[in-house]
Amino acid sequence: MNNNEVELLLVEDDPNDVELTLLALRKHKLANKIHVVRDGEEALDFVFSRGTYAHRSSNGPPKVILLDLKLPKVNGLEVLKAIKGDPRTRAVPVVVMTSSREQRDMVEGYRLGVNSYIQKPIDFSQFQTIIRDLGYYWLVVNQSPPPEAFPAK
Amino acid sequence: MNNNEVELLLVEDDPNDVELTLLALRKHKLANKIHVVRDGEEALDFVFSRGTYAHRSSNGPPKVILLDLKLPKVNGLEVLKAIKGDPRTRAVPVVVMTSSREQRDMVEGYRLGVNSYIQKPIDFSQFQTIIRDLGYYWLVVNQSPPPEAFPAK
Repeated sequence: MNNNEVELLLVEDDPNDVELTLLALRKHKLANKIHVVRDGEEALDFVFSRGTYAHRSSNGPPKVILLDLKLPKVNGLEVLKAIKGDPRTRAVPVVVMTSSREQRDMVEGYRLGVNSYIQKPIDFSQFQTIIRDLGYYWLVVNQSPPPEAFPAK
Repeated sequence: MNNNEVELLLVEDDPNDVELTLLALRKHKLANKIHVVRDGEEALDFVFSRGTYAHRSSNGPPKVILLDLKLPKVNGLEVLKAIKGDPRTRAVPVVVMTSSREQRDMVEGYRLGVNSYIQKPIDFSQFQTIIRDLGYYWLVVNQSPPPEAFPAK
């Protein structure tokens, strides 16, 4: 694995949720290379290797993106739309993880091609469990797309 | 839940794999309502409520489709393409589960919008474990698309 390769991109602006997610992933030894971005614009810069992330252009995409919906600058559904609407990035697995109980967000997420949609539990231990389950599924069980699934940028 | 509702559609022509999958799902109490189809044509008839499945039109789609790739009549990638290419069925989570080690199948699967891609283990107990893991993830952890995600047929 390339030393600069990020396994999991966490797109989350809530510092508590970031902390809890990192804690659960590390506790279960599920991801060594996690990168956190705090708004939708930075997420897109990372994914499309632009702006402050222009140097990433030669590295592979993450194995999975955990995407919150309520984000500053560019909201989560717009981020999802940009990733799934572009042949260069469409294959990256994106899991929306949200506290929103709006059915229309879920409908729109599936319409835009989200790979999986998770409701954030409010309870601390349930939150940890769900992070463990989804980390295990997407980092260990799922076969990540090979480099050929990402046409050159 | 509607009594006629199918939670998991298994599209698999190998009788051994069907048996092992059902065994693992039942052992872990993950799915009560499983329907098995043995070729790609029957899978599409089921999903689009046509042919012998015309009576299903008022029922919801399954929570997840487990799709083998090497299938009689219509192959798995064609089935995936038909499901993900139609707004009436796009939101149904589809997990490809294959013994094929062809990278181009995986690339094509992700290009067509597969939700997840799993390599079938050859070992019996690993096969059971992976079925348990993916059944748990898609039937319990993932939030299945609500009825509004499926425009009327």
